[in-house]
Amino acid sequence: MSNGHIVIGEIFGTAVLILLGGGVCAAVTLKRSKARDAGWLAITFGWGFGVLGGAYIANGYSGGHLNPAVTLGIAIKTGEWSKVPYYLIGQLIGALIGAFLVWVAYLGQFQAHLTDPEVVAGLEADPAGPATGNKAQPGGPVLGVFSTGPEIRNPVQNLLTEAIATAVLVLFILTQGMTDGLAENGMGILLTALIVVGLGLSLGGPTGYAINPFRDLGPRIVHSLLPLPNKGGSDWGYAWIPVVGPLAGAAIAGGLYRLAFT
Amino acid sequence: MSNGHIVIGEIFGTAVLILLGGGVCAAVTLKRSKARDAGWLAITFGWGFGVLGGAYIANGYSGGHLNPAVTLGIAIKTGEWSKVPYYLIGQLIGALIGAFLVWVAYLGQFQAHLTDPEVVAGLEADPAGPATGNKAQPGGPVLGVFSTGPEIRNPVQNLLTEAIATAVLVLFILTQGMTDGLAENGMGILLTALIVVGLGLSLGGPTGYAINPFRDLGPRIVHSLLPLPNKGGSDWGYAWIPVVGPLAGAAIAGGLYRLAFT
Amino acid sequence: MSNGHIVIGEIFGTAVLILLGGGVCAAVTLKRSKARDAGWLAITFGWGFGVLGGAYIANGYSGGHLNPAVTLGIAIKTGEWSKVPYYLIGQLIGALIGAFLVWVAYLGQFQAHLTDPEVVAGLEADPAGPATGNKAQPGGPVLGVFSTGPEIRNPVQNLLTEAIATAVLVLFILTQGMTDGLAENGMGILLTALIVVGLGLSLGGPTGYAINPFRDLGPRIVHSLLPLPNKGGSDWGYAWIPVVGPLAGAAIAGGLYRLAFT
Amino acid sequence: MSNGHIVIGEIFGTAVLILLGGGVCAAVTLKRSKARDAGWLAITFGWGFGVLGGAYIANGYSGGHLNPAVTLGIAIKTGEWSKVPYYLIGQLIGALIGAFLVWVAYLGQFQAHLTDPEVVAGLEADPAGPATGNKAQPGGPVLGVFSTGPEIRNPVQNLLTEAIATAVLVLFILTQGMTDGLAENGMGILLTALIVVGLGLSLGGPTGYAINPFRDLGPRIVHSLLPLPNKGGSDWGYAWIPVVGPLAGAAIAGGLYRLAFT
Repeated sequence: MSNGHIVIGEIFGTAVLILLGGGVCAAVTLKRSKARDAGWLAITFGWGFGVLGGAYIANGYSGGHLNPAVTLGIAIKTGEWSKVPYYLIGQLIGALIGAFLVWVAYLGQFQAHLTDPEVVAGLEADPAGPATGNKAQPGGPVLGVFSTGPEIRNPVQNLLTEAIATAVLVLFILTQGMTDGLAENGMGILLTALIVVGLGLSLGGPTGYAINPFRDLGPRIVHSLLPLPNKGGSDWGYAWIPVVGPLAGAAIAGGLYRLAFT
Repeated sequence: MSNGHIVIGEIFGTAVLILLGGGVCAAVTLKRSKARDAGWLAITFGWGFGVLGGAYIANGYSGGHLNPAVTLGIAIKTGEWSKVPYYLIGQLIGALIGAFLVWVAYLGQFQAHLTDPEVVAGLEADPAGPATGNKAQPGGPVLGVFSTGPEIRNPVQNLLTEAIATAVLVLFILTQGMTDGLAENGMGILLTALIVVGLGLSLGGPTGYAINPFRDLGPRIVHSLLPLPNKGGSDWGYAWIPVVGPLAGAAIAGGLYRLAFT
Repeated sequence: MSNGHIVIGEIFGTAVLILLGGGVCAAVTLKRSKARDAGWLAITFGWGFGVLGGAYIANGYSGGHLNPAVTLGIAIKTGEWSKVPYYLIGQLIGALIGAFLVWVAYLGQFQAHLTDPEVVAGLEADPAGPATGNKAQPGGPVLGVFSTGPEIRNPVQNLLTEAIATAVLVLFILTQGMTDGLAENGMGILLTALIVVGLGLSLGGPTGYAINPFRDLGPRIVHSLLPLPNKGGSDWGYAWIPVVGPLAGAAIAGGLYRLAFT
Repeated sequence: MSNGHIVIGEIFGTAVLILLGGGVCAAVTLKRSKARDAGWLAITFGWGFGVLGGAYIANGYSGGHLNPAVTLGIAIKTGEWSKVPYYLIGQLIGALIGAFLVWVAYLGQFQAHLTDPEVVAGLEADPAGPATGNKAQPGGPVLGVFSTGPEIRNPVQNLLTEAIATAVLVLFILTQGMTDGLAENGMGILLTALIVVGLGLSLGGPTGYAINPFRDLGPRIVHSLLPLPNKGGSDWGYAWIPVVGPLAGAAIAGGLYRLAFT
């Protein structure tokens, strides 16, 4: 893979991942959306199929990491670090583009939601209010469309949850079934997409499962820049956790892989 | 592929797509259906498995485009335009047949729904009423079984949403994982079906995701012709958006593909 | 395939299909079940994964038809009729065994449901009552666990719905993607299972989608024989529709296949 | 496979299975979880994707049994018993680790749930109370996150349900489609994961579908050891049923396989 291909693949793939992932959060939580209240199962499948789309599109150019934690785990496994910066650059640009496109696709819904009298009244009564169902997220009612936030704010706990979930993801990708062929012909992409659905269902409850530093950071930057009315803060105090937790989990998975599977 | 095979494949495939897609909308929204209120997740999986069925049946004859936007994207990629008319003819005929079969399969449900006192009363009070949960669709309570309509009526916004979602779909199909073999052995069909589920979950909230001009136009024509009581208008004022938006998205995807992936 | 292998394969495969399919209906509708009220999406996935299990187990011995309509369609396609009786025998025995095992697995739930004061009171007030959510099914509250019944009782309509849905299923199986290899390596089984989920979501609303004569007839026989308290009648007046409708659909699909795809 | 690889593969694979399976139970039932009340479909997909993750990770080292019932069935099929102890050791250790990690990942949710005034009040009024929706499970409100319990407590009935469901699972695995290649390239893992979803949907209603002795026993041991407030008892009186039932089912499946499929 050329460095240029890596950057292009990761930009397109990560943009699709974040567009579909942020999109499903917008679809389920914003007013005036046909998918409103479709529930947690819809959110987890939406993110999983975002991985499916992004990884498939990026596959031939970059292998479709779409996630610094995956890039870190693969670098630990292979000992090959020279291409890491190209992956990270592509992933961050892609995450920013994807989050921006969520805003474009749901522009009317954002406006309607954030100027809805009920939402505004709830926001005045309780700035970290329940509009997204996330009482612990002080960013206001639509930050949850962009970034993750914990249900119970406890840095150690939140880091542990993110690290555990990411370690499973990265170990899954590193072993690739430990058999040549298991990752080929699209099956590896499909199974990875489904394990991401599973991680959301099983380990997404406490923190909303970033399991990907740029999945959280990129959209948070976009949230902070967008001219949304009543959007609230971007909860930067939490922003380090979905960066550090997934990277720690990836490092643990890389270490476990080298200890146990080689 | 012979031109005749293309037409036959697209007729059968698109008919199955629209039969299953329109069918799930009928199943979830009409009274006296066992699937009533099964929700958005059911609708998105129903459409995705409609793609699965139609593409699989059409695969050997036409490759299973089932969608003018897909045909346009592939023509931009390959530079081969001579077979495009055969695809379009098959797709339009198939869409008309599929929508007609939805009416046949749900005939009793349509009658029961449209003569239900509660529905009729709501319709008199508010002709664009909430019977399909779509306040913005002036076509009355069952147009949503046939065609899409926006939650918030704003042409620029609605075009953007349709274009973005279709661009992801077409880019997905054009790249085909950028690896020989990824589209073979049914995996390409399965992954395309699942990305359509994902696009519905993630980007279907604002407009109901036509992402296919004839998916909207064909059933809208059938709605305008069918002898349904109290069916309301066919909302022709909106009809150009799910044609132009998806075609624009396909053109964008084709251009991006040629810029970035060749 | 030897005739004995066909019978054995179809017995095991159809028993698993009916056990899982009837099982999910019991799980979702009976009191004292952890899955109670899990909804239509659960029912459709349950039946689809029943196809997955049954077809996979039967695959090497009989090819896993599990359905007289499928057997009929394949006979029309191939012109090979001599093995049809062995398929039918295996399928009927399997359907009886499967329905019996549903009763064994949910024995306590059947007892609790049918002796529940609320259910009994509703039954006395309205023998075709709403305990299974199926007002049109005069068989009482648990017939829906075993057999299908229409929401709106209209033989012509009900036959049409069953025929249309079955025609899609059989055409799907006959074309097998019209490409060697698409049905191999488990992908054909997976895609068939998912199209059955799709048919349930999209065309199951009016009649509960038998799309398989023995899927309905076998469990109906078992319902008529089981010593369930307050079980109500077995609605034999409807029993011919889920036999004739699917067979007609299979014949239509076989004819269409011969006309259009050969 | 070396004995060491078997132990390592089963430890990792079973730990992931139980982490994701227990995790989804925590996610859906504990207060302060974003997935709370996501329902039975979420639980069954969560367990199925736990199988997907665990089997994929373990695949190259141990084949990914993750379940003494599967190990027993394969030993009966092959007549090869010498490696069974290594499978069992790995599975038990993995189940203990997985259940422990559920506690770590959901630590805050466990604390919040078990000290919630509403939960505590309900617990005082009814020690086997409805906090997990499982009236028949005397272990209190969070035992259901760890272990299974019947909705209707009847040993014979509960054994039968577990044996039937496990027999389907093991027969599925033993036949592997009875065709070389069906289990390869990840398809076997995917189909097994989906049949586990199906077994949960269809046969999970009465007992919560252990279908795996250590899936129940391992987490029950961890529940008994963890310092959770108000956790209630570990319902050891029921603990033998999800051990004996699945093993009996596996023996039946092994016997049926040898009778019918060889």
